[in-house]
Amino acid sequence: MSKYVYLFNEGNAKMKNLLGGKGANLAEMTGLGLPVPKGFTVTTEACTRYYNDGKTIAKEIEDEIYEMLSKTEKIVGKNFGDPQNPFLVSVRSGARASMPGMMDTILNLGLNDSVVEGLAKLTNNERFAFDSYRRFIQMFSDVVMEVEKPKFEKILDDIKEENNAKYDTDLCAENLKEIVKRYKALFKKEKGFDFPQDPKIQLMEAIKAVFRSWDNPRAIVYRRLNDIPGDWGTAVNVQEMVYGNMGNDSGTGVAFTRNPSTGEKKLYGEFLMNAQGEDVVAGIRTPKPMESMKEVNPEAYDQFVKIAGILENHYRDMQDMEFTIEKGRLFMLQTRNGKRTAAAALKIAVDLVAENMISKEEAIMKVDPRQLDAVLHPNFDLKALKAAAVIAKGLPASPGAATGKIYFTADEATEAAKKGEKKLVLVRLETSPEDIEGMHVSQGILTGRGGMTSHAAVVARGMGTCCVAGCSEIKINEEEKYFIDKNGKKYIEGDWISLDGSTGNVYGEQLPTVEPEMTGDFSTLMKWADEARTLKVRTNADTPADAEQAVKFGAEGIGLCRTEHMFFNADRISAMREMIVARTEEQRRKALNKLLPMQRSDFEGLFTAMKGHPVTIRFLDPPLHEFLPQEDEDIAALSKEMGMSFEELKGIVSSLHEFNPMMGHRGCRLAVSYPEIAEMQTRAVIEAAINVNKNGMSVIPEIMIPLVGDIKELKFVKDIVVKTANEVIEKSCVSLQYKVGTMIEIPRAALTADEIAKEAEFFSFGTNDLTQMTFGFSRDDAGKFLEDYYAKKVYENDPFAKLDQTGVGRLVEMAAKLGRQARPDIKLGICGEHGGDPSSVEFCHKAGLNYVSCSPFRVPIARLAAAQAAISSKDQSQGGAGSAGQR
Amino acid sequence: MSKYVYLFNEGNAKMKNLLGGKGANLAEMTGLGLPVPKGFTVTTEACTRYYNDGKTIAKEIEDEIYEMLSKTEKIVGKNFGDPQNPFLVSVRSGARASMPGMMDTILNLGLNDSVVEGLAKLTNNERFAFDSYRRFIQMFSDVVMEVEKPKFEKILDDIKEENNAKYDTDLCAENLKEIVKRYKALFKKEKGFDFPQDPKIQLMEAIKAVFRSWDNPRAIVYRRLNDIPGDWGTAVNVQEMVYGNMGNDSGTGVAFTRNPSTGEKKLYGEFLMNAQGEDVVAGIRTPKPMESMKEVNPEAYDQFVKIAGILENHYRDMQDMEFTIEKGRLFMLQTRNGKRTAAAALKIAVDLVAENMISKEEAIMKVDPRQLDAVLHPNFDLKALKAAAVIAKGLPASPGAATGKIYFTADEATEAAKKGEKKLVLVRLETSPEDIEGMHVSQGILTGRGGMTSHAAVVARGMGTCCVAGCSEIKINEEEKYFIDKNGKKYIEGDWISLDGSTGNVYGEQLPTVEPEMTGDFSTLMKWADEARTLKVRTNADTPADAEQAVKFGAEGIGLCRTEHMFFNADRISAMREMIVARTEEQRRKALNKLLPMQRSDFEGLFTAMKGHPVTIRFLDPPLHEFLPQEDEDIAALSKEMGMSFEELKGIVSSLHEFNPMMGHRGCRLAVSYPEIAEMQTRAVIEAAINVNKNGMSVIPEIMIPLVGDIKELKFVKDIVVKTANEVIEKSCVSLQYKVGTMIEIPRAALTADEIAKEAEFFSFGTNDLTQMTFGFSRDDAGKFLEDYYAKKVYENDPFAKLDQTGVGRLVEMAAKLGRQARPDIKLGICGEHGGDPSSVEFCHKAGLNYVSCSPFRVPIARLAAAQAAISSKDQSQGGAGSAGQR
Repeated sequence: MSKYVYLFNEGNAKMKNLLGGKGANLAEMTGLGLPVPKGFTVTTEACTRYYNDGKTIAKEIEDEIYEMLSKTEKIVGKNFGDPQNPFLVSVRSGARASMPGMMDTILNLGLNDSVVEGLAKLTNNERFAFDSYRRFIQMFSDVVMEVEKPKFEKILDDIKEENNAKYDTDLCAENLKEIVKRYKALFKKEKGFDFPQDPKIQLMEAIKAVFRSWDNPRAIVYRRLNDIPGDWGTAVNVQEMVYGNMGNDSGTGVAFTRNPSTGEKKLYGEFLMNAQGEDVVAGIRTPKPMESMKEVNPEAYDQFVKIAGILENHYRDMQDMEFTIEKGRLFMLQTRNGKRTAAAALKIAVDLVAENMISKEEAIMKVDPRQLDAVLHPNFDLKALKAAAVIAKGLPASPGAATGKIYFTADEATEAAKKGEKKLVLVRLETSPEDIEGMHVSQGILTGRGGMTSHAAVVARGMGTCCVAGCSEIKINEEEKYFIDKNGKKYIEGDWISLDGSTGNVYGEQLPTVEPEMTGDFSTLMKWADEARTLKVRTNADTPADAEQAVKFGAEGIGLCRTEHMFFNADRISAMREMIVARTEEQRRKALNKLLPMQRSDFEGLFTAMKGHPVTIRFLDPPLHEFLPQEDEDIAALSKEMGMSFEELKGIVSSLHEFNPMMGHRGCRLAVSYPEIAEMQTRAVIEAAINVNKNGMSVIPEIMIPLVGDIKELKFVKDIVVKTANEVIEKSCVSLQYKVGTMIEIPRAALTADEIAKEAEFFSFGTNDLTQMTFGFSRDDAGKFLEDYYAKKVYENDPFAKLDQTGVGRLVEMAAKLGRQARPDIKLGICGEHGGDPSSVEFCHKAGLNYVSCSPFRVPIARLAAAQAAISSKDQSQGGAGSAGQR
Repeated sequence: MSKYVYLFNEGNAKMKNLLGGKGANLAEMTGLGLPVPKGFTVTTEACTRYYNDGKTIAKEIEDEIYEMLSKTEKIVGKNFGDPQNPFLVSVRSGARASMPGMMDTILNLGLNDSVVEGLAKLTNNERFAFDSYRRFIQMFSDVVMEVEKPKFEKILDDIKEENNAKYDTDLCAENLKEIVKRYKALFKKEKGFDFPQDPKIQLMEAIKAVFRSWDNPRAIVYRRLNDIPGDWGTAVNVQEMVYGNMGNDSGTGVAFTRNPSTGEKKLYGEFLMNAQGEDVVAGIRTPKPMESMKEVNPEAYDQFVKIAGILENHYRDMQDMEFTIEKGRLFMLQTRNGKRTAAAALKIAVDLVAENMISKEEAIMKVDPRQLDAVLHPNFDLKALKAAAVIAKGLPASPGAATGKIYFTADEATEAAKKGEKKLVLVRLETSPEDIEGMHVSQGILTGRGGMTSHAAVVARGMGTCCVAGCSEIKINEEEKYFIDKNGKKYIEGDWISLDGSTGNVYGEQLPTVEPEMTGDFSTLMKWADEARTLKVRTNADTPADAEQAVKFGAEGIGLCRTEHMFFNADRISAMREMIVARTEEQRRKALNKLLPMQRSDFEGLFTAMKGHPVTIRFLDPPLHEFLPQEDEDIAALSKEMGMSFEELKGIVSSLHEFNPMMGHRGCRLAVSYPEIAEMQTRAVIEAAINVNKNGMSVIPEIMIPLVGDIKELKFVKDIVVKTANEVIEKSCVSLQYKVGTMIEIPRAALTADEIAKEAEFFSFGTNDLTQMTFGFSRDDAGKFLEDYYAKKVYENDPFAKLDQTGVGRLVEMAAKLGRQARPDIKLGICGEHGGDPSSVEFCHKAGLNYVSCSPFRVPIARLAAAQAAISSKDQSQGGAGSAGQR
């Protein structure tokens, strides 16, 4: 028989999968002899079982819970539901991976009408007892019974107003009793029955509620964004309550062993006196910094500093801890490896190596590559920043620079993003887990309330999104959608503001940005990563500017230059259109001749920017209709410009219409129909390479034929390329090497890769299209049903973001194998957007590819991910336990 | 060193691949001691080499040709270019497979200004010599030098008119000399140089022309239609001329050992006296039936009958022979297994078994399954036929009944077909190889000239298309596009006529048709086929009528019922639309409840029609927008009907728009979004099965979930199906078995078939979509570039017609293997249109599938193809040489 419930002293930190992160660490701390309130953990397997059993808790698990409850009662010497000596507990979720704020917590469970009286007597603190009870009723009603929270808050506000109380702490015991009375009345009105008085029923319902919360929509979204499998489930921790709200000698707080924003080695955190934990996180009262605890409770502070040191040394990583002081006595409620900004992650990793706490390889494993984004993106231009007026200042909750139009609800921000808005800033009084999607689409988050550990701050740091929190200098009116800055100026939806997440400054205008410097800890860690990795990292770049940026980021070549992007410029599109509407090959060649010098100079620019690194140039790919207007009005305008009749041009546009453009006349199919296009592009590539090589470079261009599905297709186009290239080279009287290869993006190409490798000198896996074709859905259309798929847990990941290793991956592995069989020295790479996704990079490493190619800003991410993949697979092959750090 | 040229006495019939069909059979006849003019064959490998060498004949091959020429000169005792004793030859193409009229022939080669004089003297027949010369000049100029034929015909017509000659035979020697003079002048004017006088140059140019003709556009089209690989190449036969145009004791003809239309065992053919071969085939003069040869030349006739018998016995098949009588002496110019109508093929196969000439298995191999179409399609309704007036009568050149709108050029017929015209009849004076595509799209062909072996007749029989040839009772004006019937009535483009290919009758109206009887030779051969095959044959049918038709054709179940076809009926589409525009699940269920009884009764009908055979029902597949109108006008009308505003409905239509509908919200994706649709369909299937089983049937319905790409998708929908089905069954208090399976039509499903087989009780390969996704092109759009692909020989086949065994086939084999590994008793079938394509059926047999499913009319084709596949693979495994007959 499985064991579904563990006392804290039965577990340890290695049992994370079974006990969840929180439960495992509570057990570990218990084992370390630290002051942890007693309790037990209901395992993640119980959660899985709960779902398998049709959302019920099996009798055997229920029995085991009661058994462990009774053991715990004995240990603490208190009894559940006993007014004389009541045992009160918290019920908290705790999954394998941290999902802050995603799931539910209930405090003070075990209280009822008679226990509250007993508690008041026992503590001699009626105010405390009823404060706890009203909190419990609200939390339990909201989380377990689904009575809406604002209805309770309304009552609280009413009573505060009736009694002229500013803060909750201003309310007296009588006020709180009145609240309890009204809360219970509200509950009965809403639910039709009395608030449950039996603590065992309260407990079992609370556990079920936590299990249920694993599958609430915001948790599902969070898991998708953070790559957490849905079948992990959550554990539930039931733990003796300790009280931070027992008066001014009590309090609660959260702290980090190092600064999670900067990485600085200094205890960092905040606490609130006379409060329960949720008050700190919810950001209703603004908490005080940790240092001030030295004065308030020097004894507890010293003990805490000591414990923090023990924990950091024990876990060999920066710790994020929750604690409560009950009447001067310190209790640890949680510890975990702390979430941190990218800058902090880099500094901490490098510092821990310097402190001899970890190895370089361990340091590499500690930084989540996805986080690097934050240190790579631009900061504000300093000049502009100096000239700009600060309209308010808040807490620097998550670094970075954001500029965008303001929105006052997460939904509106999400909507705006869907409509194509690229830059937006979400402005909220405070954020809640419901806001998660809106936060995700925003470049910056500004809140009026809450501290550095408020929901907004924690989530924004995790996302690498810039955040200014607790900015009380602005007055936000969410309902009427405006805010007033410190000077009295009003900002409405759509106005531009800028946020500096590193200073907390808010600017009432759009500010220009500059590139970040790639130095210090970043450069140290990346150097270590480069030493560790075997996979090369290239970039997808279509312009010399992109290419230069990518080289700065460490790109070792261009894996994909999409030549068509060069044709959309105003000065080229008309020659391109002339080519498309040509009725004869002669006309087409005439138009192509106009494009030739432009293409050639594009390529010269790219080759020069890449300084001799390999450059893969993909030939024209999109269907031709993409270059023509589709609306009658625009067709009319263009027809005039091109000196043809409206009807004629309209006819051409119609004839190019496709039912499924994704599966239409594009890629190498264009070159089969119009070989003269491939001829022109070959000429441009080869002439450009010859020209730059004359200036001392040694470019070996790689020509890539897109959308090949059959060896004969590739051969047809390759023959044109080779013939043209050799003519140009011969005429130039210099020697030049070049390669011809193909993209593997059609399933048939992967399936027949042994054939195709006979002609292709390299394969570049175009995993965007390969994913589309392999799944049989188009990226443009899948959005409509993928939401249903996520909601119904059919899919958990967007296969366009994370490479589908089971299906698409099987094709990639097959093609790599077949390709190498036919041509052992074939060069293999990937150039889909997956090239910058860490788990996909790991797959590419395992599949034995030579390189990944991704957008310039993802190059460092890919470098780090490649290093982690190399270390992991070395560890695995050595049987070592290569921890993937926070991943 | 390869041998590129073979004397006829060096080869035999087994060397078909090397010598081509004609060359191999000339060699075989030579070996049999039959009277064959001497000569040699330049091999197909020489042709391939010609193309590989950039369309030149290598020196070594040229030398070998001259060597063999000189050997042949010695054998015949004549010399090339020697006026005293001239050696004249024919140069004919001859590929591995017969491609009638597709490639070029040159007769009388070796003539020049002095040889013609010598020939006149030698034969004492000046008329003959110059007739031969003028034919040669024209043919050589046309075929080798590309001077347009009509320019020569104009001269011939002028001379005929100038001399009041009706037929060529009415012209005297002087006339012919004048023609030669004008021909040569024309040649010089057109080409700028004199007509080549050196016979060796003539020969080498002629051989090159034959090689070139392998790649002319009509040959490419013919190969594609007939599944002949482009790399086979053609051989060239150089053979001593014998003359049917040496006067009235000479002649030429073609004959079959049995009647190629009916299969009757009786010598069948026609001949022309004083003519060369081309005159018979071209249909300029109407030839006489073979019997009349008995009177004209009884000796030659007797000899021919004897040779025909020898050849049929030798080849054990009906022979198609060409012969020439030169001054009373018989020469055999060709023999081959004769093309025949489907009816004839069946009769001959069955008769040959009865005559103990072949075994049943050989008989099965002798019938081309693709031909069966002709005996399966309807004939005219007899009553209507009796009432209809015959407007003209021609030769019954290819059986069947055709009714359609008339077109006067192949191009216009092709155009009309592209625009969606389904029924058309091509009316031509005579057809030529250029007309091949127009003939292919036509249901019937009517020609004003030419006999039973004219181009139109031969090609139509091969295609299984109804043809009435040589219908001189109508006067056709091709230029002005009309014809006049025997009563003087005029018919213009677009008028309806009907053709009876078995009687030669033409009717000036649209006639109704009736189903064919499946008896006699057909039923005998099909019985043999059923005994031989292991693969089951099912049908794709959506209606009871289709299902009944298919059962008559021998279907053993329904492999695919597309439920959506049932929703397009006028009485259902409105409930369907109500379902689509529903805003809530409740509204959707209400609309689905209206559809339920209709679906149930559809399924009852299908189950009843199939009499207990298995029925696979595919759930709703197409994207929902297909059920809604797209044009504003229609949307407005529907919005009124549905009682909603135009804007609202337009909004719904827009929201359903997809960029790539093929890869959009369809298939099981609909059931994931709207499980209530799958619920309704399950209920309809299960209730229908219960109802018919109550009436004594024992249906085991098979529910097929379409477009699955991931096991979780299938599981999600299957769970709904199983839950609903079990509820219905439980409520009904009877027991019912059913299966749930999936279509494998997404590459990912094939790649993860081991996973998917855990939930799927059967796989049906949907090779239409699987081909689209695997190739990455949509059927609707590929037409635009596939023409270019054929023209440039990148593709030779339409992968939607013939299963791509290399790519798509690899997926099918992989999925079959993985599926069987995971579930050994999994049922595997194919339901794409490939299910009725013989080569694809063979593939399915080899891949070990359990059944193929195809449209009702293709069921017999699939049965026969399955039998052939079983026999072939048995022969192969036994090392036997299972000849594929005419295939």
